[in-house]
Amino acid sequence: MFPWKSVISIKPVCNVPIYLQIANQIVCQIKESHVQPGSRLPGSRAMSELLEVHRKTVVAAYEDLEAQGWIEIHPSKGAFVSTKLPERKPARIAEAPIKNGFPAQTGFEVKPYLNIHDPSYAPPGIIGLHDGPDLRLVPTKLISQTYKSILTRRAHVPHLRYFEVEGNLYLRQQLSEHLNESRGLQTTPENIFITRGSQMGIFLASSILLSPGDIVLSGDPGYYYAERVFTHFGAKVIRVPIDEHGMRTDMVKEICEKQCVRMLYITPHHHFPTTVTLCAERRMGLLEIANLCNIAILEDDYDYDFHYESSPLLPLASADQNGMVVYVGSMSKTFAQFLRIGFLVAPPNLLKEIGKLRQMIDVQGDYAMEQTIGELFRLGEIKRHMKKALKLYKQRRDHFCDLLTEQLGNRIQFKKPEGGMSIWAEFDASLQLPVVAAAAKKKGLVVSNGKVYDKASDHNWNACRLGFAGLNLEEQEFAVKVLKEVMG
Amino acid sequence: MFPWKSVISIKPVCNVPIYLQIANQIVCQIKESHVQPGSRLPGSRAMSELLEVHRKTVVAAYEDLEAQGWIEIHPSKGAFVSTKLPERKPARIAEAPIKNGFPAQTGFEVKPYLNIHDPSYAPPGIIGLHDGPDLRLVPTKLISQTYKSILTRRAHVPHLRYFEVEGNLYLRQQLSEHLNESRGLQTTPENIFITRGSQMGIFLASSILLSPGDIVLSGDPGYYYAERVFTHFGAKVIRVPIDEHGMRTDMVKEICEKQCVRMLYITPHHHFPTTVTLCAERRMGLLEIANLCNIAILEDDYDYDFHYESSPLLPLASADQNGMVVYVGSMSKTFAQFLRIGFLVAPPNLLKEIGKLRQMIDVQGDYAMEQTIGELFRLGEIKRHMKKALKLYKQRRDHFCDLLTEQLGNRIQFKKPEGGMSIWAEFDASLQLPVVAAAAKKKGLVVSNGKVYDKASDHNWNACRLGFAGLNLEEQEFAVKVLKEVMG
Repeated sequence: MFPWKSVISIKPVCNVPIYLQIANQIVCQIKESHVQPGSRLPGSRAMSELLEVHRKTVVAAYEDLEAQGWIEIHPSKGAFVSTKLPERKPARIAEAPIKNGFPAQTGFEVKPYLNIHDPSYAPPGIIGLHDGPDLRLVPTKLISQTYKSILTRRAHVPHLRYFEVEGNLYLRQQLSEHLNESRGLQTTPENIFITRGSQMGIFLASSILLSPGDIVLSGDPGYYYAERVFTHFGAKVIRVPIDEHGMRTDMVKEICEKQCVRMLYITPHHHFPTTVTLCAERRMGLLEIANLCNIAILEDDYDYDFHYESSPLLPLASADQNGMVVYVGSMSKTFAQFLRIGFLVAPPNLLKEIGKLRQMIDVQGDYAMEQTIGELFRLGEIKRHMKKALKLYKQRRDHFCDLLTEQLGNRIQFKKPEGGMSIWAEFDASLQLPVVAAAAKKKGLVVSNGKVYDKASDHNWNACRLGFAGLNLEEQEFAVKVLKEVMG
Repeated sequence: MFPWKSVISIKPVCNVPIYLQIANQIVCQIKESHVQPGSRLPGSRAMSELLEVHRKTVVAAYEDLEAQGWIEIHPSKGAFVSTKLPERKPARIAEAPIKNGFPAQTGFEVKPYLNIHDPSYAPPGIIGLHDGPDLRLVPTKLISQTYKSILTRRAHVPHLRYFEVEGNLYLRQQLSEHLNESRGLQTTPENIFITRGSQMGIFLASSILLSPGDIVLSGDPGYYYAERVFTHFGAKVIRVPIDEHGMRTDMVKEICEKQCVRMLYITPHHHFPTTVTLCAERRMGLLEIANLCNIAILEDDYDYDFHYESSPLLPLASADQNGMVVYVGSMSKTFAQFLRIGFLVAPPNLLKEIGKLRQMIDVQGDYAMEQTIGELFRLGEIKRHMKKALKLYKQRRDHFCDLLTEQLGNRIQFKKPEGGMSIWAEFDASLQLPVVAAAAKKKGLVVSNGKVYDKASDHNWNACRLGFAGLNLEEQEFAVKVLKEVMG
């Protein structure tokens, strides 16, 4: 008999279940022709004694092998290595010489596509003054548990194929309620379109709304990745100065009187990157201009939920009577960036066109994860998480601002932001931010070199955002200590 | 004392943990001002006796309330309703009249974007001859268990933010090995770019490669959703007839001699929609033409892994010496469409440009799910699943083809496909497919009305794909019975 005992070794502590270990090793023996097609395997009882495992384990292994086509089980006769083995060598399409590796370069021409900023990701684990939430707060267990319970619930299985391009209806219902309650909107689920983060919302809306030559107004400084999208679609970006109350409405008016503007992009709640809040008077002013000049307002409210002061302002969308505002939001700031779920809020005629485009890009979103987030809304978990994060981030903002004032007050200028996860720090003219950033990196701290903000501006700011939300108080102290050292 | 016992009711059988039920109901009482800011809550021991729960449960509830900012806990003094309550009413931005619902329509103009086919999703649960895998085979437990173990593993937490735009490195490594082994490629991970399904691969590659006015060759009939992408980018699609050996290479040559062609789109393994396999001679012919005329070949091999006959052919990409082929694949057919993971295989200079574009669309993929699929590759689970599905689908193909021949052999023409999940059925001229489809729908069977194939062709085919992989033998019998009835 074939020496099964000596060729199959079982590791009890292993990710792979024992029955699969057995099945895999039998496959190896078949593949290497150590056992021949048509030959009989030991009965399950005999094999279980040989391998010193439970008989059920062997039965499971045999069933798996049969399902894969490696063996055939004939009741009362036994298990036989299949004569029609499933492994087939695919044929090469020509007797051409065998290649030496993958082609190093395309044979056809590829134009450098965009002068887009190469992303620089800080290595995980290094302390960095990044924008964005504290990953350590992500309720990973809650999310993955809920996800699992949804994916394994039988009722959901029929949905695991193509579904509504607008996104999971249950999430749209929950989100509609949440937005109505927190932002004074009056949406129904048909006003909501689920995207993969706010970036996709900006991309989809811009693709439908912009034609080459269109004019888009954006802040100075503004959000680089949004502006790149506008120019990608051939639009011309005109920058409107941002002051301590947000975008200068008087300048917007002046521009719109002279030329035809298609769209205005704004982050009113905490302007990106300078963090200022657009005051109520200017909000009304913008809506008036939009109505008068027929301008679409793309309102990017990605961090609306993170406001620490007593009176957040409702978004422009809440006061829009005429369908001038397309509202973009995100869940990626609420939990973590890996969760690519955002949303667009707009009248259905726009969302319909956006759906047609979305089908061509990636067909649809992630049904099961969208259902998961819907469920977490219903259970109140999202609100609970936001409240906790809000409280903690407020503390961190206060501590960070105090530290900066005490330690670096004479070298950087900033205003305590009313919300968001970062401050906007303007560095003293005697310091060069790229030099500071390079020196800090050597001491184990990642800070932006500010170039990305200069690119989205007509100025050289010598400034950057310093994220406080992701660092606990000790980490903040380390970061400010390093900054102080390298700033001399 | 406040009657806590009567206002807090605990449901033992409920999705919401008991401590959260308690916390939520205390929040309600605070919100409705039944308990006042500054007032003291019962001690945890007293409360646990009142509510007849474990004291630890009350402690957990209080901690949650504190984390959310609803109460303050002063050691040795007790828990007090916070005087600075976290709920703030946001301010409306103007005294404008309250809106009556969400605007029904945009105020600005939205051009109908594309004459794209409105998607028609069959209601889940109805039997349909859809393309695609059997959702009942999806190893939902395995996927969600693995996903959970990844998301909750501490080592992964630092990655849950922005990561490599090319996709999770671990998955790219596993995929590279798998592609080299199964498709005769010689990739390294730097040749792999993870996308959200093959549709995104087609979209990204086309966006970088095509300029307005470019000529793209596609099959006649071809894949509608790919062709829509090409025309979206301003390209002109020229259709090349498909015969029983696949695309007519002689016609491709003829066209390329007369005009400058930028790209050729092909699904060689099982042509979409007609399922024929492109023969080896023509494959070499296409590569030669591509080299000679400097044409990029977009090889869409979405169902390569599902081939039932003895000799699958390696893809064009395996014989490409000069970097002319961009290879597109998908995992969505392996498991289910909800899993939006696909890949592009190409030289790095192209993938670099694609990465810049991807950043603007949705920033990045799903780190945790990509890691999950990588893990399932490493454990051999993907291969195992594919083998099982392959065996089952082969059986289903054979059974379905036999049924069709027996029952409908005189009304429809088809050739047994060597792979894939569907057959291509041409209906007798005496039958009108849209009429057949409408009648079948009334009897509880969803069949394509064929319009989408006509749109991707210069012919009216009176034909459609009939998916067999998703239906078990009884369901197939039901489907063919209905077809026979409605075809009279």
